[in-house]
Amino acid sequence: MKLIADNLRITRPEMRRALQQFDPAPVQDLVKACEARGAWAIDVNTGPLGKCADIGMTFFIEAVQAVTDLPLLIDTANPDAMTAGVKAARNRIIINGFSLEPCKLEQILPLARKHDADIVGFLLYPDSRVPTDAAQRFAVALDLIAAAEAAGVAKERVIIDPVIPPLAWSDGIVQARQVLEVIHTLPDLLGFPVRTIGGISNLGTSAPDIKKRLAVEQTYLAMLAAAGLDYGLLDILNPDLVQAARVSGILANEDIFSWGMVP
Amino acid sequence: MKLIADNLRITRPEMRRALQQFDPAPVQDLVKACEARGAWAIDVNTGPLGKCADIGMTFFIEAVQAVTDLPLLIDTANPDAMTAGVKAARNRIIINGFSLEPCKLEQILPLARKHDADIVGFLLYPDSRVPTDAAQRFAVALDLIAAAEAAGVAKERVIIDPVIPPLAWSDGIVQARQVLEVIHTLPDLLGFPVRTIGGISNLGTSAPDIKKRLAVEQTYLAMLAAAGLDYGLLDILNPDLVQAARVSGILANEDIFSWGMVP
Repeated sequence: MKLIADNLRITRPEMRRALQQFDPAPVQDLVKACEARGAWAIDVNTGPLGKCADIGMTFFIEAVQAVTDLPLLIDTANPDAMTAGVKAARNRIIINGFSLEPCKLEQILPLARKHDADIVGFLLYPDSRVPTDAAQRFAVALDLIAAAEAAGVAKERVIIDPVIPPLAWSDGIVQARQVLEVIHTLPDLLGFPVRTIGGISNLGTSAPDIKKRLAVEQTYLAMLAAAGLDYGLLDILNPDLVQAARVSGILANEDIFSWGMVP
Repeated sequence: MKLIADNLRITRPEMRRALQQFDPAPVQDLVKACEARGAWAIDVNTGPLGKCADIGMTFFIEAVQAVTDLPLLIDTANPDAMTAGVKAARNRIIINGFSLEPCKLEQILPLARKHDADIVGFLLYPDSRVPTDAAQRFAVALDLIAAAEAAGVAKERVIIDPVIPPLAWSDGIVQARQVLEVIHTLPDLLGFPVRTIGGISNLGTSAPDIKKRLAVEQTYLAMLAAAGLDYGLLDILNPDLVQAARVSGILANEDIFSWGMVP
């Protein structure tokens, strides 16, 4: 499992302030810390950015790639911001992402072909509702792959995000189990080794306390790794979580066979 | 996943001393602590006990059941000690256990029929070697079930122990993955919901340090739960490990659907 830092998010006051002041230093300090902790890539979660989305996105992308060569996930639902992001990027990028929502199919998916980039596909209905069981998720995955191919994007370019639910949802635990099943089964169902990505932090949204949240995230990470998740989006600055992710990767499916290598 | 305390072991100096002095107090204090932490059962691991095995085993069983009504796993490779244990027990017992080794088949397996008890069956060759891949483990499991039925023990009485390997073995990680696969697949392969048991503490034998050992055990516990393990033998007095086990059980397969219930 490759670990992607989800730390750079516009919802953090210091990132919002950096944008308002066009001050790259806080962004760059954060990215350097993420790289030092072993992030394989940085998710640049700018949110929609409103008016002047292109200026905001360009600020973030340029700030980040001035201090790192890591791959960047450009994480916005705004097609204008996404277009600006892929244009500004020199690092390897992953477009994060598209869904069956018409505006995403029309305006975001084509960017993957134009820029020869990987793209995350969310298992969501066209109206952004979350499917409620594994069978529905499989049906959406088939539709996503078909849409990608229709847009000239090779199916191998699509990284499926099954959308890890907050456990606080009334059926969150049931959905979390179904997500594991989907990750485990999807490559067989689609007939090729489709890659999968999951946002761990989603799970503990509104968790009762921080220690329980960590225990739940560590545990689910192990299950995700065993199910074959390729990319885990997480708080890379949380050493307990990162240790759990690395141990999980080693136990589950990576080519490191020495106990001495366990971090 | 039901949690079984593996804390009562003759390898601990205070347990050996209790036996030498026929002093039940240290044994009883330990058992009460295990029950207070939520153990579903107590593994009474007396070792072979040498000469006068019956006296030693009877001492332990009587000491334990004087303070608890929990089920007891009688854990010895010595048929004389096992015979004394099942005779002394009034609590529900699980015989732990038998294998394809001839003396186990002849002297331990029949006790399950005689005392109408569950019995653990180890996935080991007749000479006690550990099978080296999942296919070999499946073959041994079939032989164990056949041996049980031939001895008049219903197959539903057998709890399979796939023998979690120490990761320090040169191929420990590979074997640990195979054990997960065996746990996941065995019910389908055998055609009935066979129960499985695993000793978590085995994994970290000779671990480099205690923090790594905990991380590895927590992670593997989550994977075991997701694979469907029924009984986890572990250090019930380690609260971090127990929390991981409970969270794993909730996320994996138990009928508790409320986030508020996560301990």
